[in-house]
Amino acid sequence: MTVVTSHDARSGAALAEVAAETSPDALGAICQQAAAASAELDELGRHGRAVMLSAMADALEEWRPEIVGLADRESALGETRLNGELTRTCLQLRFFAEVITDGAYLEATIDHAGDTAMGPRPDLRRMLRPLGPVGVFGASNFPLAFSVPGGDTASALAAGCAVVAKVHDAHPATSLCCAEALAEGSRRAGVELPVVSLVFGEPAGVALVNDPAIQAIGFTGSLRGGRSLFDVASSRPSPIPFYGELGALNAVLVAPAAASLRGAEIAAGLASSFNLGVGQFCTKPGIVLLPAGEAGDVVRDALAAAVGGLPAGLMLTERIAAAYAAGASALASQQGVRVLAEGAAPGSSSGWWGVPMLLEADPAALDGALGDECFGPVLAVLRYDGGHELGQLLSRLSPALTATVHAEEADDDLVAPALEQMSARVGRVVWNGYPTGVAVAWAMHHGGPYPATTDPLHTSVGAAAIRRWLRPVTYQSLPERLLPAELRDEPAAGHAVARRVDGRLELPGAS
Amino acid sequence: MTVVTSHDARSGAALAEVAAETSPDALGAICQQAAAASAELDELGRHGRAVMLSAMADALEEWRPEIVGLADRESALGETRLNGELTRTCLQLRFFAEVITDGAYLEATIDHAGDTAMGPRPDLRRMLRPLGPVGVFGASNFPLAFSVPGGDTASALAAGCAVVAKVHDAHPATSLCCAEALAEGSRRAGVELPVVSLVFGEPAGVALVNDPAIQAIGFTGSLRGGRSLFDVASSRPSPIPFYGELGALNAVLVAPAAASLRGAEIAAGLASSFNLGVGQFCTKPGIVLLPAGEAGDVVRDALAAAVGGLPAGLMLTERIAAAYAAGASALASQQGVRVLAEGAAPGSSSGWWGVPMLLEADPAALDGALGDECFGPVLAVLRYDGGHELGQLLSRLSPALTATVHAEEADDDLVAPALEQMSARVGRVVWNGYPTGVAVAWAMHHGGPYPATTDPLHTSVGAAAIRRWLRPVTYQSLPERLLPAELRDEPAAGHAVARRVDGRLELPGAS
Repeated sequence: MTVVTSHDARSGAALAEVAAETSPDALGAICQQAAAASAELDELGRHGRAVMLSAMADALEEWRPEIVGLADRESALGETRLNGELTRTCLQLRFFAEVITDGAYLEATIDHAGDTAMGPRPDLRRMLRPLGPVGVFGASNFPLAFSVPGGDTASALAAGCAVVAKVHDAHPATSLCCAEALAEGSRRAGVELPVVSLVFGEPAGVALVNDPAIQAIGFTGSLRGGRSLFDVASSRPSPIPFYGELGALNAVLVAPAAASLRGAEIAAGLASSFNLGVGQFCTKPGIVLLPAGEAGDVVRDALAAAVGGLPAGLMLTERIAAAYAAGASALASQQGVRVLAEGAAPGSSSGWWGVPMLLEADPAALDGALGDECFGPVLAVLRYDGGHELGQLLSRLSPALTATVHAEEADDDLVAPALEQMSARVGRVVWNGYPTGVAVAWAMHHGGPYPATTDPLHTSVGAAAIRRWLRPVTYQSLPERLLPAELRDEPAAGHAVARRVDGRLELPGAS
Repeated sequence: MTVVTSHDARSGAALAEVAAETSPDALGAICQQAAAASAELDELGRHGRAVMLSAMADALEEWRPEIVGLADRESALGETRLNGELTRTCLQLRFFAEVITDGAYLEATIDHAGDTAMGPRPDLRRMLRPLGPVGVFGASNFPLAFSVPGGDTASALAAGCAVVAKVHDAHPATSLCCAEALAEGSRRAGVELPVVSLVFGEPAGVALVNDPAIQAIGFTGSLRGGRSLFDVASSRPSPIPFYGELGALNAVLVAPAAASLRGAEIAAGLASSFNLGVGQFCTKPGIVLLPAGEAGDVVRDALAAAVGGLPAGLMLTERIAAAYAAGASALASQQGVRVLAEGAAPGSSSGWWGVPMLLEADPAALDGALGDECFGPVLAVLRYDGGHELGQLLSRLSPALTATVHAEEADDDLVAPALEQMSARVGRVVWNGYPTGVAVAWAMHHGGPYPATTDPLHTSVGAAAIRRWLRPVTYQSLPERLLPAELRDEPAAGHAVARRVDGRLELPGAS
């Protein structure tokens, strides 16, 4: 039996055997149980699930010292960052409680029977219902915010779907501890069945995607791993939706007036953003487009100075550190690419270190490896001379999660068409800011066309993330007594939600 | 060069060469042009696109005699049905004009900058934007309502996506004529580029799904054809969404009290529904579950009498007629299946005839071919004795587009759990009605889990069909002057839409 081991990310030492890899038989039983748990979550109703999500947040808060301690040991991300991540995760659980209490996410729609130019039309009532049990793959780089607890799990539970979570081998002990806190929260809310179950090991991950009970998959990770599991999900006898958030080569455009006015400030902000979490963010800026000429030179030189002063950092796993070292060195030796600056050497010989690196590249290099994401603290400077060259450069970039623009009003003529070009290929456009940092909010979109994600219609962060776990059902001429509560003409107390009735949107309490 | 020929569906005779199959080079150029046309549609704005959709409906109405004449010749569906189909298609174009004028489909969401427990949050504004050019595959069975014009095309154009339509070889002359009417409509609305282009031939269909410019596919057709193109879409270097509506084995449950009270009426309705359009509806009822005992016997016998009196009908194509004949005869000879009744023999020896057939089957037969859709006028009766047997039967059925229940209030104890079981596996639940007939309405859902469709989250009929051609973009801290009109704090006249602002839904004009 293959064993799953917890490692100390600072020393690389193996610490403890946490679990055995999940066997095929055990996996099948877990997925069956998740189907039963989904039915319980659905019956619980929106109010009951909101109570459960809050109780889960409470339990995670109560276990904070233990969870953050384990996560820091397994990720080396530091207690400040990890405390912030746990806070985010708890807020997110409460946010989805708010989303389902609001109820507009159900898209409740009523068309009363009536005559049309096509003849009489029956009474039709539509709303969204949970898909059933789903699989969630934890990410290496966010052990608390995109893992066993996190956006996928919170939104799926809110929707009424039980979660089978594939534990990332970078933080198995953290995952177990979080799962216990979540289970404690659901028990306190009176839920009997396990609504979040864990599975361990890569074979179990593939079997999870293939399990006939599983109705959809949420994934945060690499392009290679995500594409491979997307292919499995799409090749099933009954294919299922696969929501893969695969990272991106995020571009930052600095327009000439902005470069002149606040070049040093932009350089400092960029250096901090691309090196945040040792460059291990899917929204890490990987490319910066600077104007030709003096203003651009100033930003480039300030960036080089800033990067030269950055320390090396501990990366999440041995494999990630090795892949980054190989990837950054391959980029540095690519034709048309020059190294502008490197951060300090590692402070010790043990540990999985990553050294920040700033490159300068010719546009043609985008057709090589420079055009793909390199996961870790590397940033490449490219130059453009005017709107035409900028347009050509932008058209060579792959779709991405984000695009960022630093500009002043004087830059509008250059920037307006560039914004149009960028927003046609990314999920979020950032103005005079940095792409790292993805707020949990109603208006957030964290997604984008492939290869940013495997499903351009959906988001993994923000209120709309719940839509991934729901499908519509229309009830035709059903008697009131058998309709879901939210679709009755006069919903009982607690069941009034925003609805479209006979073509008109109506807010609850405002009929 | 392979030629595409129009056939007379009544005689089977080849009438005219309509077009050449589209070459790979021509296809690439058409898709490039569709990308440019999508940009024009996006710039046109919601108001301009609504005007265009109405002008297209006007033009189709003006060309009604010619279109219906060609469609009747190529499909043998009859002028009454085809006039109804054209009316439906025109109403649908006007309906999507209404949907985009309303504007709630944009899901406009604004979170103003503010302080949160995670620190300051930037200004975030989200809305849906068109995906870009899309491919649409016309269906054999609805030459006007699910073909070159139809739900996929209307919703895609409304969203702002130009359409490259793969013409079904069952009705190429009809398709050409419809495309000319649509082009006339768009020209009248001042649109310069071709927003609906046609491609011919199966190789061009596969190349369309593979073309890098194409951002999504709408498909209505068979499970085999749809799955094969879904596999192509999912295997692209950059996979794209594939919305396949693949048909279904739609079940009808008759509960005991309903069978006793109005068995003869139900039998007559069912006989008419399963034989509508010679059984060539994706919502055709394929299975009817009757209670054991006398009341069920009465319905069965009335059904057999009704089917015995049905005429043979002309089917859409030679291939469809041959597949139906082979499929129905294979079902009839399956173990545990008996023929209860057959319709009259064909009236002539030429033409692609289908003979209606009623079968009776043991539950175990559902594990064989009886468990899959057979496209054409065949219906199978199964019997159940009480809720337990009914539950077991229902659990053996594949997911489907619809499930129908005939019941009285006295049946509630049996029916309530059955409804729950059915609605977990279908897109629409019909009460005391028949599943054929899919109204174009705000509350319609025409979809379901695989194999009913390849994407359980989306619909191909009704207002929400537009969601398939849109993806979200979030604008972070963008200055008002560069924001899309609908996302500005004070939208100009004509740009006010329902929005969620700082977590609260707001209706236009009610701020």
